Amino acid sequence: MDLHGAFHVYDTTLRDGAQQEGLNLSVADKLAIARQLDGLGVGFIEGGWPGSNPKDTEFFRRAREELDLRHARLAAFGATRRAGVRAADDPLVAALRDSGAGVVTLVAKSHDRHVELALRTTLEENLAMVRDTVTHLREEGQTVFLDAEHFFDGYRANRAYALEVLRTATEAGAEVVALCDTNGGMLPDWVSDVVLDVIETTGSRVGIHAHNDSGCAVANSLAAVAAGATHVQGCINGYGERTGNADLVTVVANLETKLDRAVLPKGLLREATRIAHAVAEVTNVPPAPRQPYVGHSAFAHKAGLHASAIKVDPDLYQHLDPLVVGNDMRLLVSDMAGRASIELKGRELGYDLSDDRELVTRVTDRVKAMEQRGYTFEAADASFELLLAEEVEGARPSYVDVESWRVITETRTDGEAISEATVKLRAEGVRYVVTGEGNGPVNALDAALREAIGQAFPEVAKFELVDYKVRILDPSLPGGHGTDATTRVLIETSDGESSWVTVGVGANVIEASWEALLDGLTFGLRRQQR
Amino acid sequence: MDLHGAFHVYDTTLRDGAQQEGLNLSVADKLAIARQLDGLGVGFIEGGWPGSNPKDTEFFRRAREELDLRHARLAAFGATRRAGVRAADDPLVAALRDSGAGVVTLVAKSHDRHVELALRTTLEENLAMVRDTVTHLREEGQTVFLDAEHFFDGYRANRAYALEVLRTATEAGAEVVALCDTNGGMLPDWVSDVVLDVIETTGSRVGIHAHNDSGCAVANSLAAVAAGATHVQGCINGYGERTGNADLVTVVANLETKLDRAVLPKGLLREATRIAHAVAEVTNVPPAPRQPYVGHSAFAHKAGLHASAIKVDPDLYQHLDPLVVGNDMRLLVSDMAGRASIELKGRELGYDLSDDRELVTRVTDRVKAMEQRGYTFEAADASFELLLAEEVEGARPSYVDVESWRVITETRTDGEAISEATVKLRAEGVRYVVTGEGNGPVNALDAALREAIGQAFPEVAKFELVDYKVRILDPSLPGGHGTDATTRVLIETSDGESSWVTVGVGANVIEASWEALLDGLTFGLRRQQR
Repeated sequence: MDLHGAFHVYDTTLRDGAQQEGLNLSVADKLAIARQLDGLGVGFIEGGWPGSNPKDTEFFRRAREELDLRHARLAAFGATRRAGVRAADDPLVAALRDSGAGVVTLVAKSHDRHVELALRTTLEENLAMVRDTVTHLREEGQTVFLDAEHFFDGYRANRAYALEVLRTATEAGAEVVALCDTNGGMLPDWVSDVVLDVIETTGSRVGIHAHNDSGCAVANSLAAVAAGATHVQGCINGYGERTGNADLVTVVANLETKLDRAVLPKGLLREATRIAHAVAEVTNVPPAPRQPYVGHSAFAHKAGLHASAIKVDPDLYQHLDPLVVGNDMRLLVSDMAGRASIELKGRELGYDLSDDRELVTRVTDRVKAMEQRGYTFEAADASFELLLAEEVEGARPSYVDVESWRVITETRTDGEAISEATVKLRAEGVRYVVTGEGNGPVNALDAALREAIGQAFPEVAKFELVDYKVRILDPSLPGGHGTDATTRVLIETSDGESSWVTVGVGANVIEASWEALLDGLTFGLRRQQR
Repeated sequence: MDLHGAFHVYDTTLRDGAQQEGLNLSVADKLAIARQLDGLGVGFIEGGWPGSNPKDTEFFRRAREELDLRHARLAAFGATRRAGVRAADDPLVAALRDSGAGVVTLVAKSHDRHVELALRTTLEENLAMVRDTVTHLREEGQTVFLDAEHFFDGYRANRAYALEVLRTATEAGAEVVALCDTNGGMLPDWVSDVVLDVIETTGSRVGIHAHNDSGCAVANSLAAVAAGATHVQGCINGYGERTGNADLVTVVANLETKLDRAVLPKGLLREATRIAHAVAEVTNVPPAPRQPYVGHSAFAHKAGLHASAIKVDPDLYQHLDPLVVGNDMRLLVSDMAGRASIELKGRELGYDLSDDRELVTRVTDRVKAMEQRGYTFEAADASFELLLAEEVEGARPSYVDVESWRVITETRTDGEAISEATVKLRAEGVRYVVTGEGNGPVNALDAALREAIGQAFPEVAKFELVDYKVRILDPSLPGGHGTDATTRVLIETSDGESSWVTVGVGANVIEASWEALLDGLTFGLRRQQR
């Protein structure tokens, strides 16, 4: 099947997605993302606006040399010619022609007020700009799509003119007219009505380009497809200006899994979770845990109520088998969880608890009591496993006897503060007294503790503290407010291959941190099978 | 207009929202969030499941005493009676009865397989459980809403039975039957069809409870309303299990601003941005910048191309005037927005800066540079005022010369940790060396600092540190991860009548805390007009 012909999955992460606040992509970033998008099997990758800035021009140059795309075609984005010049003479049009991209997506004004205020030209000249530019690029051998900017608002303001712009583009040879909800304020029923009217009136092949300002970008895209659109634009992870563009993965996953439209090459949807996260690594925008389909929490279940039935039939509790999008079901342990989820969690960790009702009760009660005091285990799998091991094996896993620790933070003469920690402990029969420095008390404690333990267990040299979170609990409780309050610390430790999270709780933030630090090292050592 | 009667805006943040991974609300957190939700004017606040865990039981007890709600009614969530017992004898039903909540939202199974697998009872007994429990609670004087769990999947599996559950509840006196898309996999057109059928077949008053697994929670909620639902459930900031519940603010803003449905008390939508962010402070879930309507980036424009047209007519470039939801337009490449808000902020604090362009530029540049380093002044008015005073008056307000400080935290012989701080400073010509103790390093520093300053300025005895927040910034930047990262501390100080917030930033959490502590006391003393 010719997917490009039948249905266009068109990604604009590298152009419109890059408009997101705080997102800044180098040429190398763009090339890396393009490879990932191709791995997902999108049909088109809009690479940028050649000629508008050196970075995008360079992207198209390097893409020609370096990108070997299996599924996608590159599209260059650009504007119709300026008013009053020939398309062939406009340097920005020339940059599109020279980009080497097989497809050019031309943005055109379709809202009469925008023509007058932003382009400062007449409605007639704008139509000529569309006609000339499409014709010229078609004659040069490029496929042309038209992005009708502010189309929906324009349609409301002056339907006849907005439609005339589309008709002009189609007659000049544009293959698709993409209706852009540039301000993102549309709702699905409205999109549906407009798309139906456009198709009936103009006969054009219609695309949709939705933004998420009303929280409906995905639904608006689906509404357009239901009304006959066969080209969907969006960005991976829903990147984009303001509230973002339609999340292309969510749109595609809905089309494939819920509406039986095969819009990606067979089997590639299974790469969605991996690719969404890989792109997030490149953009350095932390992935949203609650992102549909591919989020870390998207198939995580907390409710104890359901856990017993999940065991029997997981499909009753999820809208989709997470493997279809390359994601995983996870069960969270929390104070709402009952026995069944403790049992399931145990199984995940390699403990079969199903025969030991008393043990499960003990663990459940202990989790509940500890969560009452401020612990959280759903975020701290490693601490939960240590607790479980303690209950199953009769003693908490431990590799050292801590005698005492101390940490001092003070202003130096130059005004900056410095922290110094001393840890005294016994490991493998030897007593260690080690002092470590750091730019904060926990940092200093971590340094001293790891150096002390590291003398007995050299493998801790691989461990690294990669995230540290502090949460003040119940600041408004009587007697528990301000710096008096209970503190919860979550620490993520990595061994370079995988990472694990431990939790500590205490009135003293340093004490809570110590607990989480020590558990983090203990868990890591235990995993090395000592 | 009786909003509660006409249309129900029903928030379930405290119950279903709290199922979100990593979200852990104390009773005090829940009370604080309930006050914010009431300030937004929602009609119903689901407070939790009394009887299922001690925390929720305590919430309802304290809510009776401490909450003075102007707009909202509290709802207690709970299940229908267990199989084989009388409703009046079921202790969980008793907990609902005794919660003091005027409204009870009963969750019931409406999917035949769930009845068999999760409840392990017969379809007939499940209907009896619905009928008996609704009847019993109605007789006890409570309003009853029914949450029909897994309704949409149940409707597909066994339409007749799913509808029978609704009919049974309605006949027994349930005021609303809320159709729950518990697994979150529905799409708007499907929701619409089912709601139309339910209303036509049962005549029940219908509500919608949507999850966002298909990225369509908001659109699904709107589709239900268009089909006749008059009760919408959701969570502020879209909190919730997996991909979250429908974001109630987005749903409500769409209904009010796009569909002309007045579903909140007049004027309260304007509080939406403030309240969404205030709740995020309580949950400690960082607000999503791209959140529709209320996100920090929701009305931020990378102006460039459009700048001149935006100045002429901003409405051409946004779907809504951001003031309607209490948000602001921001132009990212221009400092116009920055200067204007500095001027406005100065005016708020009693400084007329309109004639001093150079001063405004200086303050704007400094704020930008400091925010780049991790400071935030939106949340720290007092620190901003000190900065402004410094620029206006030529020197930073100060009442003491700090010579040095030091804080030690160590394990005691009994295993608990104790902190001890020493502060050396000069005030009013006298040198003070004071040591203070605390159950944490900041607590100890606060004690020592206040005692030292208090000897020169007795009015600080009234000051109290009432809130302390720590946030780790940019933990994923190279060289900036884990405990090495930059730390931002926000401290709220009170003099018993009002309170103010100061900010400190540093690689060392103790140093950042010291900065915020000292500024807090300085601001308090300055306010006493010394």
